[in-house]
Amino acid sequence: MPSTDEIRIYPVGGYSEYGRNMTAVEVDDEIVIFDMGIKLDRVMIDEDLVFEDTDLLDLVGIGAIPDDSVLESKRDRVVAIVPSHGHLDHIGALPKLAHRYDCPIICTPYTARLVEAYMAKEKAHMATKDVEIIPLPTGQMRPLTRKLTLELVRMTHSILDSSMPVLHTPYGEVVYGNDFKLDNNPVIGRPPDYARLKEIGAGKGESGRGVAALIAETTRAGEDTKTESESVARAILKDHIMGLENDEDGMIVTTFSSHTERIKSIVEFGQKIGREVILLGRSMENYNLLAEEMGFADFMEDVQVWGRRRSIERALGDVMREGKEKYLICATGHQGEPDALLSRIARDETPFQLSRGDHVIFSSNVIPHPVNVANFHVLTHRLRRHSVRMIKGAHVSGHGAREDHYELLQMLRPEHILPSHGDIKAQAAYIGIAQDFGYAPEDNVHITSNGRAVTLKV
Amino acid sequence: MPSTDEIRIYPVGGYSEYGRNMTAVEVDDEIVIFDMGIKLDRVMIDEDLVFEDTDLLDLVGIGAIPDDSVLESKRDRVVAIVPSHGHLDHIGALPKLAHRYDCPIICTPYTARLVEAYMAKEKAHMATKDVEIIPLPTGQMRPLTRKLTLELVRMTHSILDSSMPVLHTPYGEVVYGNDFKLDNNPVIGRPPDYARLKEIGAGKGESGRGVAALIAETTRAGEDTKTESESVARAILKDHIMGLENDEDGMIVTTFSSHTERIKSIVEFGQKIGREVILLGRSMENYNLLAEEMGFADFMEDVQVWGRRRSIERALGDVMREGKEKYLICATGHQGEPDALLSRIARDETPFQLSRGDHVIFSSNVIPHPVNVANFHVLTHRLRRHSVRMIKGAHVSGHGAREDHYELLQMLRPEHILPSHGDIKAQAAYIGIAQDFGYAPEDNVHITSNGRAVTLKV
Amino acid sequence: MPSTDEIRIYPVGGYSEYGRNMTAVEVDDEIVIFDMGIKLDRVMIDEDLVFEDTDLLDLVGIGAIPDDSVLESKRDRVVAIVPSHGHLDHIGALPKLAHRYDCPIICTPYTARLVEAYMAKEKAHMATKDVEIIPLPTGQMRPLTRKLTLELVRMTHSILDSSMPVLHTPYGEVVYGNDFKLDNNPVIGRPPDYARLKEIGAGKGESGRGVAALIAETTRAGEDTKTESESVARAILKDHIMGLENDEDGMIVTTFSSHTERIKSIVEFGQKIGREVILLGRSMENYNLLAEEMGFADFMEDVQVWGRRRSIERALGDVMREGKEKYLICATGHQGEPDALLSRIARDETPFQLSRGDHVIFSSNVIPHPVNVANFHVLTHRLRRHSVRMIKGAHVSGHGAREDHYELLQMLRPEHILPSHGDIKAQAAYIGIAQDFGYAPEDNVHITSNGRAVTLKV
Amino acid sequence: MPSTDEIRIYPVGGYSEYGRNMTAVEVDDEIVIFDMGIKLDRVMIDEDLVFEDTDLLDLVGIGAIPDDSVLESKRDRVVAIVPSHGHLDHIGALPKLAHRYDCPIICTPYTARLVEAYMAKEKAHMATKDVEIIPLPTGQMRPLTRKLTLELVRMTHSILDSSMPVLHTPYGEVVYGNDFKLDNNPVIGRPPDYARLKEIGAGKGESGRGVAALIAETTRAGEDTKTESESVARAILKDHIMGLENDEDGMIVTTFSSHTERIKSIVEFGQKIGREVILLGRSMENYNLLAEEMGFADFMEDVQVWGRRRSIERALGDVMREGKEKYLICATGHQGEPDALLSRIARDETPFQLSRGDHVIFSSNVIPHPVNVANFHVLTHRLRRHSVRMIKGAHVSGHGAREDHYELLQMLRPEHILPSHGDIKAQAAYIGIAQDFGYAPEDNVHITSNGRAVTLKV
Repeated sequence: MPSTDEIRIYPVGGYSEYGRNMTAVEVDDEIVIFDMGIKLDRVMIDEDLVFEDTDLLDLVGIGAIPDDSVLESKRDRVVAIVPSHGHLDHIGALPKLAHRYDCPIICTPYTARLVEAYMAKEKAHMATKDVEIIPLPTGQMRPLTRKLTLELVRMTHSILDSSMPVLHTPYGEVVYGNDFKLDNNPVIGRPPDYARLKEIGAGKGESGRGVAALIAETTRAGEDTKTESESVARAILKDHIMGLENDEDGMIVTTFSSHTERIKSIVEFGQKIGREVILLGRSMENYNLLAEEMGFADFMEDVQVWGRRRSIERALGDVMREGKEKYLICATGHQGEPDALLSRIARDETPFQLSRGDHVIFSSNVIPHPVNVANFHVLTHRLRRHSVRMIKGAHVSGHGAREDHYELLQMLRPEHILPSHGDIKAQAAYIGIAQDFGYAPEDNVHITSNGRAVTLKV
Repeated sequence: MPSTDEIRIYPVGGYSEYGRNMTAVEVDDEIVIFDMGIKLDRVMIDEDLVFEDTDLLDLVGIGAIPDDSVLESKRDRVVAIVPSHGHLDHIGALPKLAHRYDCPIICTPYTARLVEAYMAKEKAHMATKDVEIIPLPTGQMRPLTRKLTLELVRMTHSILDSSMPVLHTPYGEVVYGNDFKLDNNPVIGRPPDYARLKEIGAGKGESGRGVAALIAETTRAGEDTKTESESVARAILKDHIMGLENDEDGMIVTTFSSHTERIKSIVEFGQKIGREVILLGRSMENYNLLAEEMGFADFMEDVQVWGRRRSIERALGDVMREGKEKYLICATGHQGEPDALLSRIARDETPFQLSRGDHVIFSSNVIPHPVNVANFHVLTHRLRRHSVRMIKGAHVSGHGAREDHYELLQMLRPEHILPSHGDIKAQAAYIGIAQDFGYAPEDNVHITSNGRAVTLKV
Repeated sequence: MPSTDEIRIYPVGGYSEYGRNMTAVEVDDEIVIFDMGIKLDRVMIDEDLVFEDTDLLDLVGIGAIPDDSVLESKRDRVVAIVPSHGHLDHIGALPKLAHRYDCPIICTPYTARLVEAYMAKEKAHMATKDVEIIPLPTGQMRPLTRKLTLELVRMTHSILDSSMPVLHTPYGEVVYGNDFKLDNNPVIGRPPDYARLKEIGAGKGESGRGVAALIAETTRAGEDTKTESESVARAILKDHIMGLENDEDGMIVTTFSSHTERIKSIVEFGQKIGREVILLGRSMENYNLLAEEMGFADFMEDVQVWGRRRSIERALGDVMREGKEKYLICATGHQGEPDALLSRIARDETPFQLSRGDHVIFSSNVIPHPVNVANFHVLTHRLRRHSVRMIKGAHVSGHGAREDHYELLQMLRPEHILPSHGDIKAQAAYIGIAQDFGYAPEDNVHITSNGRAVTLKV
Repeated sequence: MPSTDEIRIYPVGGYSEYGRNMTAVEVDDEIVIFDMGIKLDRVMIDEDLVFEDTDLLDLVGIGAIPDDSVLESKRDRVVAIVPSHGHLDHIGALPKLAHRYDCPIICTPYTARLVEAYMAKEKAHMATKDVEIIPLPTGQMRPLTRKLTLELVRMTHSILDSSMPVLHTPYGEVVYGNDFKLDNNPVIGRPPDYARLKEIGAGKGESGRGVAALIAETTRAGEDTKTESESVARAILKDHIMGLENDEDGMIVTTFSSHTERIKSIVEFGQKIGREVILLGRSMENYNLLAEEMGFADFMEDVQVWGRRRSIERALGDVMREGKEKYLICATGHQGEPDALLSRIARDETPFQLSRGDHVIFSSNVIPHPVNVANFHVLTHRLRRHSVRMIKGAHVSGHGAREDHYELLQMLRPEHILPSHGDIKAQAAYIGIAQDFGYAPEDNVHITSNGRAVTLKV
């Protein structure tokens, strides 16, 4: 007799699209939600929008945050909200949506602090009830209900303290693999906890039944490689920062503010060539001071960090006075965002004057959305007019490629797979990988879309 | 009164195209030729052609070797032929053309040995007179005539013992910058001799007048970066070879046979994971045994190398018998060349049987010629049918990008520039760089084409 | 009570790929097969393969023909094989597979004659039993069994006498929409039979229940347009053939041999500028003489057609003697196929000598498979060496784009949809269209793959 | 003895870039200027810029208008300013620059009226002296000085009354071929005056010496085709407008406002399907009412045209009241310009409400500048959210491709060529064409850049 055990997956956001990740998992009458993110390009397109002042329904209407109406009648069954890591496309909608559920947010300690700060900022604007935020270190188990237990497995991505959440249910484990890469040589912290993943895959989780379902990001599933380690980005930065013929000119490096591993490399090589390193930008300050405070980032000790516009202006004024060649500036604005520091520098709106021979190193890729591409073009066009020297693409991705996915499948051997976080082409590429393991569409690998629940017989 | 001193440059091959590099420099009534290469894709398109058996005029007719008729009446004025390094697009036409000139070939010692072997192979086919081959180590001066002195400056590229030849003339130095990148952390040997380049740029060459002309390759002039060091390729290979979950399966790495630095990394990481490394393919044997013999490649000591087809088959038979998981095979065929070993393996024409989980790492890029792209597609399609795991693009280029060119110009400050070795788009991109230094087309940066001499007033 | 009526669809070939189309539809215990095609690029990759001499299992093994093993145990239930039109990716596997089923082939009269000829050619090689081929004109109904009735609805594509087969079943109609475009101004014949399609969509088919399932090609589903009419291709050809300054030089037009509408335009404009038109190539002869014989192509009256190599050579010899400017040659070889006439001309292997000023018009697109791209590059490279003048892309597609699909869905309103004939990206694009009508993946629009049956509750 | 006759060409704007065309031709001590255009994307990048209020030096500084300082000391030698046609990248800088020269503007009558209106608008802002504007119909000669005579040869492009200006000088003719295509079947007016061009090429111009120099646009020189006639665009529009299943829904067509030929097709097919046609947008009004007034556009008789925002709103209100299915709206905004009507409609800022099934036809291409690409993406993304049906790319270019250039060279056989109006890649592609005629870079085909004069020995 076939089992009648069922797990129900509600894809709320991030299916057939990038951003605003949110997935709910229902087991009997209990629900756990993974992630509540925003979709940044929607916000960008409607650029006159001020996120914090905007009404919930409007944000849903323009697709900036997940539309959770599919959970309307079941709000009270939700027992936990579990962000996998601290990027905005995973936590950004929490201030708008979390208070509608009567349950705590559970995530790794660094993520918890980011969520806390982010929720506080929102609270200043709107009167919402308090939501409990519970830090859960990776490697520990936390019972949620009599049936459900949560575990955050140590994972690598492009922000500190990332996890791959595992929900232990009576019908098998549900693994939320969104986002991740398998980095064997991270610059801060340790590689993913392969031993634990293999145990879970081998039926040594709480259920004793193995993995019932894997929700897997697909961003780079179409790339025929394994994503390079962050240590490769470090080698690239070393080559560029230490190898450039540049003793007399300015040097600006721009990267993702939340990528503390990357910033560690920038800082250390900057110091090795005898420059004082200054981090500039509000988000640079937020992510990295917190990282230092929590013990992830000793390298921050001798680094200046300025977040407010006035402090930034003053710091840049000092740089001009003391001599650009004495500093390495690490700034926001790698995507050419018009309001970010680098764009403002390029428009000569700050005390920093670009001149021929100055270096600008982009430790980033251009996210291939047309609005980004245009912003980036405008930025680099302006930089070129100042005859600065540019290094583009000094970067490796934080998202796993085909062979990362292959290895995860090898370790977990899930009964069902739901490709998520990617457009339909990325999801389709993922299916190609799954087919190598014998999975088949509509059978045990499920292409779904926002709002369409999938019931898995397990 | 304006100077009437003149240097005449004859672009013979490699202008507005890739491959078959050849440039002649005439000073008063003496000529020095740099490079005599072949253009490989022309040979590929006419694939029924057997290079060694083909008549000279036919090879010129199909564009496979340079058409040196522009030098017809001046053959006896040529005092030296100077290959910059040992790649076939720089030395491949020597067996066909060098004997028409009554002068020696002068190049670095490793290059000299390659040229010697290559000429000998041809001689077996055709009765040509002997051509003297003179090894000249980098860093030494060699007078050619009363007026002309040759110097080979140490340079980095993607083959051992590369040089940037400098011809000291009474009217200033002529620098032949084709091909090169500025690698500050090479895996074998030392960085480029910047000190000497700066001296020459500062007028401390024999002429005392500075650089009269720079002939510059342009392959990657359009890329907004500085080409990464070979040590970055090493970091990438380390990550892939040591980081893959692969204890039980086969592992094949394919790369450029002449890239001994790269092969060193492959060998060393292969040995670190406990595998015996075997280099397979005739060209693998040629380049790397010579490298070992000349003291560049101690790492070859514990490596098997097999070049003849029968030996390769036997070695692969051994691998299958002993267990694929004990070996790392380094094979030719990264472009999908139909006759190369990797394509033969993919077509099941060798004893090596591919199976699910085997790794194939491409430490190479696909040269973007449509015939290559098609070959590569056919190869990877066949590999995919065997369910092997592929890592593509574990590579960094040997050609300088925009910022390498910038630094070379900074050091040399030539009076005139001739962009070479690249299609017209690459040459055009180079002009963009030169314009940043105040150079202007038709004035002091000269776009020319094969066969059209340029006279420089210096 | 929900209906227990079921229709089962077996996707045999052409799912998540281009070519070798084949789909079986099972209703109770009767099966109808639509199409049995080949996949040409697989044949190309293994180019030493002689199709006619190759064993069935080998062809399946390399993916050149559909793998019909999913129907193994049900062969005797198949009551008809129904090719929608005469292209090889729809009929090419009939000689290899049809005799394994004990049923007739039913298709439009022109298609029937093509199938007949194609089967005869194979029979010369292998001893297979005879298969009955029944011509069924569009617009007529033909009962297959007590339950099933077949109708071929008049459709437009890029070959004469195309149809959209409709299978009337007790549980609703099954429409096989593969391949088609909605051309309101065809150059030969009439537009699609919209009136009948709307009737069927409105429940006026035999079942009285409306369309149960649509199998839809997806080749160009990702293009945001409605595919232009063949009359647009005619306008483009008129402009090029009549508008070029070319009274003294040769003129070659190359296009799909089976595209008789296109050839009509070429012939008529060629004659208007006073040139005699010659069609050259075996397939040119096959398709177009048959078209003339069946009354589709009166324009063939004053056209020379030669198919055998010796006749072609003689005709080209005549052209050179009489003067190239007196002729317009319509030749095979638009994809750069190495053995086709145009490639042979470009290699100077025929009496026709290309010279500066000759025109070559490509009334075709390059099918974006890397092997085609390489072949086409080699061809145009050789043509360029002869300084001929080329017109590329004088073409419109025969496959519907997004808005063609939109209109078909509007007319048919099927209960279920199976996207077919396209890679997973094309299928994904199709889903986007279906979603505009409220269809949802896994619910009523089904992504499937070769060999994985889908059961539809209807 | 070689001739000492010289013609000097000053490339002022539009060299190695798109837009702000301006070239000066000096013969002995007299100068004629061709075109004074703006570069629109520079204005776009600095989008807070109000063109009319901006200072001259600032516009030069950001590269929006040509930097004519190379003519500083020679202003008084300029005897005429000759715009070839009325597009803004050819006339847009006249209001800012023309008054600095003491000479008339001479151009075709329609162009003259456009210039007049454009200058008047500027005058309202700044107090500049009057500049005489002289209409000169194509086909007439107008002596400028004792030595120089101007002729405007009838040409086809994508605006009415285009010309190819020819300057007859004692040392041969100078032909200004920027912009043009060779359209043998224009929708309004006649084909180019080939007879006259051939005469001039054959030495039957005033000089009796043939063409000394051709300045040639290069926008599409890299495309291997001859640009299709406007009659092809008409055939495409006919197919789309008349062929769509759309009796009940709205229909918007967007195209270049100045493309009166295109608008004629839109209007006529709109009327054929029984819809009332309304042109909306200020530039729609400007170009097309003038065209009607001057007798180019009888089709405008039964067409509503509204230019002011309030009138547009009222007209759209009427449309909503009367029923969208009764109208065809021809609107500005095909590039997704945020302020254009179509973008405002997509943002629901007008009375027109988009609904499912409405058609939007883009009779345009996306100009491949990243800012355009982003704008277009935002627009189509918003349209898609309204579930409208889109037809993209119903367009043919107004710029000649490789074979147009070939034919022009065939007719003119100029002694020297200066590729203009295109980036360096487009100019490079043009050189490829010229090389087919035996021209060679630095010899008689001259790649130059803004501000670098070229002296031609003729």
